[in-house]
Amino acid sequence: MSHAAGLIVTGGRVLTAVATPDDPLGVRDDAAVVCRGGRVVWVGASADAEAAARAAGIDPRDPTLVRLDAGGRLVSPGLVDCHTHLVFAGNRAAEFALRARGAGYQEIAAAGGGIAATLGPTRATPVDQLAALAAGRARRALAAGTTTLEAKSGYDLTLDGEVALLEAIHAAGHVDLGGKLRGAGPPPRLVPTLLAHLVPPEARGSAAARAAYVAGFADDLIPRVAAARLASSVDVYCDDGAFTLDETRRLLTAARGAGLAVRAHVGQFADLGGAELLAELGAWSADHLEQVSDAGIAALAAAGVVAVMLPAACVQLRMTPPPVAKLRAAGVAMAVATDLNPGTSWCETLEVPMWLATTHYGMTVEETWLGVTRVAARALGRDDLGVLSPGSAADLVVWDTDQPADLPYRIGVPLAHTVVVAGAVVA
Amino acid sequence: MSHAAGLIVTGGRVLTAVATPDDPLGVRDDAAVVCRGGRVVWVGASADAEAAARAAGIDPRDPTLVRLDAGGRLVSPGLVDCHTHLVFAGNRAAEFALRARGAGYQEIAAAGGGIAATLGPTRATPVDQLAALAAGRARRALAAGTTTLEAKSGYDLTLDGEVALLEAIHAAGHVDLGGKLRGAGPPPRLVPTLLAHLVPPEARGSAAARAAYVAGFADDLIPRVAAARLASSVDVYCDDGAFTLDETRRLLTAARGAGLAVRAHVGQFADLGGAELLAELGAWSADHLEQVSDAGIAALAAAGVVAVMLPAACVQLRMTPPPVAKLRAAGVAMAVATDLNPGTSWCETLEVPMWLATTHYGMTVEETWLGVTRVAARALGRDDLGVLSPGSAADLVVWDTDQPADLPYRIGVPLAHTVVVAGAVVA
Repeated sequence: MSHAAGLIVTGGRVLTAVATPDDPLGVRDDAAVVCRGGRVVWVGASADAEAAARAAGIDPRDPTLVRLDAGGRLVSPGLVDCHTHLVFAGNRAAEFALRARGAGYQEIAAAGGGIAATLGPTRATPVDQLAALAAGRARRALAAGTTTLEAKSGYDLTLDGEVALLEAIHAAGHVDLGGKLRGAGPPPRLVPTLLAHLVPPEARGSAAARAAYVAGFADDLIPRVAAARLASSVDVYCDDGAFTLDETRRLLTAARGAGLAVRAHVGQFADLGGAELLAELGAWSADHLEQVSDAGIAALAAAGVVAVMLPAACVQLRMTPPPVAKLRAAGVAMAVATDLNPGTSWCETLEVPMWLATTHYGMTVEETWLGVTRVAARALGRDDLGVLSPGSAADLVVWDTDQPADLPYRIGVPLAHTVVVAGAVVA
Repeated sequence: MSHAAGLIVTGGRVLTAVATPDDPLGVRDDAAVVCRGGRVVWVGASADAEAAARAAGIDPRDPTLVRLDAGGRLVSPGLVDCHTHLVFAGNRAAEFALRARGAGYQEIAAAGGGIAATLGPTRATPVDQLAALAAGRARRALAAGTTTLEAKSGYDLTLDGEVALLEAIHAAGHVDLGGKLRGAGPPPRLVPTLLAHLVPPEARGSAAARAAYVAGFADDLIPRVAAARLASSVDVYCDDGAFTLDETRRLLTAARGAGLAVRAHVGQFADLGGAELLAELGAWSADHLEQVSDAGIAALAAAGVVAVMLPAACVQLRMTPPPVAKLRAAGVAMAVATDLNPGTSWCETLEVPMWLATTHYGMTVEETWLGVTRVAARALGRDDLGVLSPGSAADLVVWDTDQPADLPYRIGVPLAHTVVVAGAVVA
C-alpha cells in the first residue's frame, strides 16, 4: 500500500477510541488528525494542526500532502471486523429459505445444507476466483467504513485446500500480520486466520480417521501455515457437531507451539467449556458465547480474552443472545463482528451488527463503537488499529453525521463519507 | 413523470407476484416484460417479446425504445414500502443511545424523548426543507429498489401543520393517489397518508381540549385534506398513550365519510380492540399487531384487512414479534414495511425488514416477497402496483442475483442493479 507523504484532517468531531475520564469513546470536538507514512503522528485541536504537521516533518508545500476538512463531521478509526469467513464460493439461499419455513439445523443438514454445502463449490473454484470473490466482499465492506477484516479459511477442510484458501486471502488484498508480513494488494487490511472448521466428510468414517485428521491439522498443517506466515492465528470451531474440547485443546496447543495466536468459536449451540480453555491458553478472543457458564465468563475476564458478539448470526438462527449483562459486569471486553459466512450470516458490513448489538443484545452505543474499533483490534492482537492516537495506523473514516449514535441508529443509510487506509483516501 | 415510448426487458427470471398453482411468487424463467406508456402490456417468453411489442403498437425502430437484457437476473416488481413516516426533521440519536443503555419508554419520554422530540424540529423547519429531507430518504430507498413509498404526516400535530406536512410530501416527489392526482416530481411514487399521531402537547391540558382536538381533526382537517386531495387515506395511532379506541372510531368514521380510505397503528404496545374496529370499517391495513387477540385476527381475516409487519421497530423496541403463525393460519395477508421514523426505526430501505421478517418473525421467503410487493400494494388500496402483469404499472427492479431468497439472505449487500419506474430507468 502506498502512503501519501502526509494527510491532515481538520474540523472533525474526532472519536479517538482512547477513553478519557468522562468519555469512553474519547470524542474531541473541532479536532484534527495528522498522519505521515501511513501512521497517525498527532491528534489535537484543529487550530494547532499546521504547526503539528510541520513539527512532524511534513512540508506544507508538498504537492502530495492531502488536506481534508471534515466540516464538523464525525471522524473515527476505520472499523475493524474481527470475525469473517471471507473466502468461499456458492450460495445457500435455498437453505435460508428452508430455515425461514421453519426447518431446523438437523433437517437442513439432512437436505445437504450446512457447512458441507459450501465445501463443494469452494473446492471446485480456482484460487484466483476465490480471491476475486473475497476481494469483492472486502471492497463492499471498505465502502461502508471497514478498514480491517479478519478472514478465516475453513471451507475446504483438506490440509492442502486450507493452505490454498489462505493463499486466496493473500491474493485478495493487503494482508497485514502486524509487521510480520505485508502484502501489496488493495485495502482493506486483511488479517488471515487458519480455521479448523469441521471434520471433513472424508474423515468421518471412523474414530481413527477423525483422530488422524486432527493430528494432521495439528502436526502438519499448523506448522506449515506458521512457517509460510500465511496466518497470524488459529481458530477452532468448538461445539456440538464440530470439534470436541479435547480436540480443540490439541489444535490450539499446536498453534501456540508454532508461535501462532489462538481463538475459537465457542458456545454457539452448546457450552463445552471452551471459554475456560481459551482463558487458560491466553487466547485473543472467544467468539459467539450464546452458551457460556458463569465460570467461563469469570475465566475470560481474568485472562483478558475478548468476547466477540455475532448478533446477525444469532438472530438468523433464532438463538437467545449471549449474556451481555453478565459479561459487562465481569469486565469482559466485547467486540462486535459480522460473522460474514454463507450459511448463517451473509452480512458484509458492520451496520446491521452494530444496530443489533445496541438493540437486540443490549449493548450501549459506546460499547458497540469500541466493539468495532479498539476492542475488535484487540481481538486481532493489535493495539495500533481501531484507535486514533500517535503511532496508530492512519486508518480513519469521515462520517456523514456528527453523532456516534447515528451509526447504530440509522440503518440502511450509508453514512461513510470518506475512507482512509494507511493515510491514503481509498473510498 | 415522463414515460419512454416503450421498454422491453428480456432474459429475466421474472418474479411476477402473480401466483401459479405451483409457485406463490409466479417466477418465470427466460421471461420478458414489455411496457408502454408507463404500464406493463405483456409478460411472456423472451423469444416472443419482439412480436408482443409490435402487437402492442411499439415501433421496433423507435429511437426512444429502451431494451434491457437482464442476463438471467431476477426481475421483480418494484418494491412497495407501505408504512413510512417519511417527512420529519431532527434526529433522536441521543434517545437511541439512552434506550441502548436500558432506559424504558417512560424514562425516555420524561427526558423529553418520544414523538414530542420530533415535533419541535419539524415545526421549526420550512416546508421546502422538509420536502428536501423527505426526497433524500426517498432517493436512497429508490436506489435500493423501492419504487413506491407510503408517506405519513404526523410530526406537527396542529391542523394547519399537518396540511403543511402533506404539502411537503407533494413537493418531495411524484405523488400517486391511484389516478385521482398525479404530481410532477421525481420517483419513487409517494402515497401520502394523513396520520392522527398523538394528541399534541397544546391539547393535553384537559379532557375538553383533547376532545376539541379530536373534533377539529375529524370535522375540519379530514374534510380539508380530502377536498384538496392531499392524501388517499387516514391513519390513527390507536394505542396506550395515543388515541383511544373511541377516538379512533370517531376519526376513521370521519375519514370514511369524507371518501378517504382508513388504516391504523394498532397493538404495538396494547391491544385496545383496534383490529376489530379496522375490520368493521373495511380498512386497507392494520399495522404493528404485536398485541392482537384471536378475535382480532379472525376479524382481520374475514374483512380482508392486510396486516403490516414492522420488524425493525419491533426489534429496536425489544418487543415480542406479532403472532405470525396465527395470522398465517387465519389467512391474513401480511405486508412487510420499514416504519421509517426517527424514534423507533430509522430504516430507509426494505433490506433489513425483509431479513428480519424471514428470520426473527418466521415468515417464509415467499411471504416476505409478497409482503413487499403485491400485499404491500393492497395495503395501499392498489392492485396495479407490486405485480408484473398486463395493466400493472411498469415499475420493476433488475437484481444482481437470480434467486429471490438472496434478498432477505444477503444483508448489507446492495443487490439492486437497475430500477425502473413507470417504464423509465431511474436508478
